[in-house]
Amino acid sequence: MPAYATNMRLKFPILALTLEIITIILFSVFVVYDDGEKHDGHGDHGNSNSSVIPFPDVFQDVHVMIFIGFGFLMTFLKRYGFSSVGLNLLLAAFALQWGLLMQGLWHLDADGKIRVDVFKMINADFSTATVLISFGAVLGKTSPVQLLIMTILEITIFGINEHLVANVLGANDVGASMIIHAFGAYFGLAVARVLYRPALRDHENNGSVYHSDLFAMIGTVFLWMFWPSFNSAIANPGADQLMAVTNTYFSLAACVLSAYAISSLVEHKGKLDMVHIQNATLAGGVAVGTCADMNIGPFGAMLIGFVAGIISTLGFKFLSPILASHLGIQDTCGVHNLHGMPGILGGIAGIVAVAMGKKNGSAAMQACALASSLGFALVGGAITGLIMKLPFWGQPPDQNCFDDSIYWEVPEEEEAEESLAHGEHSTNKAEA
Amino acid sequence: MPAYATNMRLKFPILALTLEIITIILFSVFVVYDDGEKHDGHGDHGNSNSSVIPFPDVFQDVHVMIFIGFGFLMTFLKRYGFSSVGLNLLLAAFALQWGLLMQGLWHLDADGKIRVDVFKMINADFSTATVLISFGAVLGKTSPVQLLIMTILEITIFGINEHLVANVLGANDVGASMIIHAFGAYFGLAVARVLYRPALRDHENNGSVYHSDLFAMIGTVFLWMFWPSFNSAIANPGADQLMAVTNTYFSLAACVLSAYAISSLVEHKGKLDMVHIQNATLAGGVAVGTCADMNIGPFGAMLIGFVAGIISTLGFKFLSPILASHLGIQDTCGVHNLHGMPGILGGIAGIVAVAMGKKNGSAAMQACALASSLGFALVGGAITGLIMKLPFWGQPPDQNCFDDSIYWEVPEEEEAEESLAHGEHSTNKAEA
Amino acid sequence: MPAYATNMRLKFPILALTLEIITIILFSVFVVYDDGEKHDGHGDHGNSNSSVIPFPDVFQDVHVMIFIGFGFLMTFLKRYGFSSVGLNLLLAAFALQWGLLMQGLWHLDADGKIRVDVFKMINADFSTATVLISFGAVLGKTSPVQLLIMTILEITIFGINEHLVANVLGANDVGASMIIHAFGAYFGLAVARVLYRPALRDHENNGSVYHSDLFAMIGTVFLWMFWPSFNSAIANPGADQLMAVTNTYFSLAACVLSAYAISSLVEHKGKLDMVHIQNATLAGGVAVGTCADMNIGPFGAMLIGFVAGIISTLGFKFLSPILASHLGIQDTCGVHNLHGMPGILGGIAGIVAVAMGKKNGSAAMQACALASSLGFALVGGAITGLIMKLPFWGQPPDQNCFDDSIYWEVPEEEEAEESLAHGEHSTNKAEA
Repeated sequence: MPAYATNMRLKFPILALTLEIITIILFSVFVVYDDGEKHDGHGDHGNSNSSVIPFPDVFQDVHVMIFIGFGFLMTFLKRYGFSSVGLNLLLAAFALQWGLLMQGLWHLDADGKIRVDVFKMINADFSTATVLISFGAVLGKTSPVQLLIMTILEITIFGINEHLVANVLGANDVGASMIIHAFGAYFGLAVARVLYRPALRDHENNGSVYHSDLFAMIGTVFLWMFWPSFNSAIANPGADQLMAVTNTYFSLAACVLSAYAISSLVEHKGKLDMVHIQNATLAGGVAVGTCADMNIGPFGAMLIGFVAGIISTLGFKFLSPILASHLGIQDTCGVHNLHGMPGILGGIAGIVAVAMGKKNGSAAMQACALASSLGFALVGGAITGLIMKLPFWGQPPDQNCFDDSIYWEVPEEEEAEESLAHGEHSTNKAEA
Repeated sequence: MPAYATNMRLKFPILALTLEIITIILFSVFVVYDDGEKHDGHGDHGNSNSSVIPFPDVFQDVHVMIFIGFGFLMTFLKRYGFSSVGLNLLLAAFALQWGLLMQGLWHLDADGKIRVDVFKMINADFSTATVLISFGAVLGKTSPVQLLIMTILEITIFGINEHLVANVLGANDVGASMIIHAFGAYFGLAVARVLYRPALRDHENNGSVYHSDLFAMIGTVFLWMFWPSFNSAIANPGADQLMAVTNTYFSLAACVLSAYAISSLVEHKGKLDMVHIQNATLAGGVAVGTCADMNIGPFGAMLIGFVAGIISTLGFKFLSPILASHLGIQDTCGVHNLHGMPGILGGIAGIVAVAMGKKNGSAAMQACALASSLGFALVGGAITGLIMKLPFWGQPPDQNCFDDSIYWEVPEEEEAEESLAHGEHSTNKAEA
Repeated sequence: MPAYATNMRLKFPILALTLEIITIILFSVFVVYDDGEKHDGHGDHGNSNSSVIPFPDVFQDVHVMIFIGFGFLMTFLKRYGFSSVGLNLLLAAFALQWGLLMQGLWHLDADGKIRVDVFKMINADFSTATVLISFGAVLGKTSPVQLLIMTILEITIFGINEHLVANVLGANDVGASMIIHAFGAYFGLAVARVLYRPALRDHENNGSVYHSDLFAMIGTVFLWMFWPSFNSAIANPGADQLMAVTNTYFSLAACVLSAYAISSLVEHKGKLDMVHIQNATLAGGVAVGTCADMNIGPFGAMLIGFVAGIISTLGFKFLSPILASHLGIQDTCGVHNLHGMPGILGGIAGIVAVAMGKKNGSAAMQACALASSLGFALVGGAITGLIMKLPFWGQPPDQNCFDDSIYWEVPEEEEAEESLAHGEHSTNKAEA
């Protein structure tokens, strides 16, 4: 691929401006303020009454998870921090607008309008999360244009699956183990499979430095702290919501202990590995998602988290290398271990819990919801990957993967110190 | 200017301790707890009932913007991070005390007291924001003593203008595009003009390194996420407040897309520039401020944000160099592009929106409010700059600008590695 | 001590997994969801009605202080950031489970159950804080196994003292100057005294680098901002809670000014020292804790903060070196200056305030509470230290103290650049 193909000067601005203008036009047609009154046809998935969700509490927590949590979690790469937090902001800012439209179109009011309330804003952030999870699988290997295309398609497909799971199947998934985490992970893995590039194996830039690992911990800790809000955001207010908070809180706490223990057990000389700590400590939040508002008991939640921490750490250590070397699935952030397997675990736990009567519902419908989420993810991801693979979206050449300097102005000092060998010359930032 | 003049050993402690003692005495005379009862004469600008603002929700969000947002946004300079986040904390801690007094004195209760409630604490944080915006214009070129002097004067002048705009003119400015953003920016630019130093042009320390740009993104993202709280903090509770949240949220989202697009369009080979991403993505929050609680429609808010992102990015690229080279205005953080022009845009949008009946009010009064804010800022900033220019406040010599080591103990390693050439020898931190 | 003793491969995983499994079993026996109904025997210390504490407001703020605040505050060491934020997460995740049990066992409901509500979760976070304060005293000198042991013992002893102070003595300590801050500090100092190692004096790794000091400021600023929530979390809702917020807010603001002033006054050439700024600016929050919900007036709170900032800064400058060299107390983070002395100051202020009738209570009981907290801390810490000193817990050798690479996989680049001399070879992180 010739180097000039990565010049974004026209492609990216045209795409970004066009998308935003289309979005503004669609908003002018469909979106109005919520006036607090009831309109026929108004009905979101979930059963929350938006008027009782306090602003900005839970919404702000979810917002912090999306922008700080996901954004900084991905800054662990030594030379890809600008892209991680910067493209995270770009994709999320577009995704929340697009998500509001794609979810809202399934729930138009009688007058054909989408009324924006805090509940819809939370759901838009939720749809955004799927894109950011998939972003983790392809991190470092895709151009901003490719990622915007993925955002459009993934959000659209998410909206269909979410409508099917919540409104048609009537399945429980309050913390979205299935419709966000498993969906986002397998969508991203399918894209990554299609975009497989053998030359990226053992890429010199695909690793961390000391301070990049600390930046990533900012993301980890904010995700960890606010996950109870994520899992309870659309629960029934009151006892159900507190139950979702409690279950998530204890699942995460138990998950930390098992993730640390297994990391030490499997690593050289019993040392802890930052990759595990940054990611597997969060698997408890993913895995308890579907069951979060079910009466599984605090110790039930802890068991789920405990198992999730083990599975996730083992996945990073043993499964990811196999996926990369044998199946051609290069999963930069290990989303399979943080969102994929724990998401399936969460879905299965939900099936069992519903079968045990911990929540009203049908175990069969829960199973259908899990299958639907996986199916839409894999098929949708594969198609999206094929579209992203078209040769004119500015995908970075192999040697420039995991490297900010191909799409960003990078300060000169770093260039001089670290990347003379990259054949990439970047001008210094011109400031007045 | 001889080097010893920058020794802060007596000047700074005496000033800081004296200011704090005076403040404590003034508090002992004027400030009492809010007892929740109504006292004659009690009347804040804005129309909010403090008892319905939940603590700590909106207040804490604004607080995070002041201390993390502004503090880390300014850490982008390679050798000025201690000063950015550290002096931000110092100035803000003093400013919020002084701001409570300077705003409260215009609204004394019948018994001559200022009753502290959450609403007054939010307003004190607001007044603090003006100082931090101005700080951005003079960042790296001023001593802590100079900055404390600026804080006293700017807050006092802000209090007068804010009283005039809100209580005398009765203008709308819920998100404070005019009275905080435009005021703070042009005040700081006037100070910067008076303190102009030709030798600072192309200063070697006036730039970023890779990790300093990532620290700055912490500030950017927290400002971006919590801006809806800033713009809605003093809105009427209920529908107006939700409208302010919604408008700000979508304005910011649209602004991100246009800022990224224009950054790529104007930069070398279509690359993104961190300066634009760190700053111009926030212009939508500034520009929608005055209109935030007006019925402009979500798409109206998006249009404002979209235009603000374009103007702000173009300002960084083309206008700031001209201001520096032709007008002698060295604007370290580019506050003119983030707060100045978007603040004026917000003021103008407010005039138009009121003229179109989107909110009760007078377009003429809106225009007077904008003119008043700009006038007080420019005249007040110029006078303040002249006082700050007096030769005994410890202003750093040209070669030590944008360098922490003149006012801070800096760890030895960095000294050895990066700044042997600076002729500045710093002792290592002595820890037990 | 032979190097292999620090191999955690069996000890740490076995301990961590065992503790978590025991905890899950205890939870299955004792812990149930709060159903919102009143159960006989239900009675927490403090007088708050859990149903009126909004989730996640105050709880989330305290949570952020525990995980981001304490975690990043300790990242100031140049080579110990992984351990600081990582072990902080590990210890806190275990401590909050253990704390819920150890506090709950004193307050079982009539049916022998502990009902988890937000109030109990806040109290569990509080007990966690004591461990993290003590962690600061022994930072860099202890193994994960030693720290888990300290967590178990300290939380258990904290539970006893807290029950005694709050329920038996009936003392006021809403912001926990005595039962958290003084207790945690002197507990940790007693442990540090027992673990004294002369060879650690002037250890080359016991210092910061430029960016590690900036990471630490993330912790400082989040602690500073959310301290009003910490001190008001268990206050009586309404006027008392707002009073606690107001007092803490102004105490902290005044403390910043005095800490900066004294730092400049005592340092070389009037420069500011990051150690003081990172820590002493918070002493006002500690010192106003006991009095936070007392009618001491905003200026009274400011006086307390003002004095705390002075004492704390002077302690870092003059007292810590003496403690280390003459008393064998090596206090890595200076917790004596941030939590110890300000905690005692807070306890004394509480005695005086109660004696002056600022709050119902007995000055004698306040004094007993302070004495009890100090006594339990010193005796409990000494015993805990002796247990931690047993030679098979994997304590790091002197030359590997303050160095992540003994317990963590550290990225290769850093190894190459900074630590070839350490005789420690770490494998690079294996990522797929």
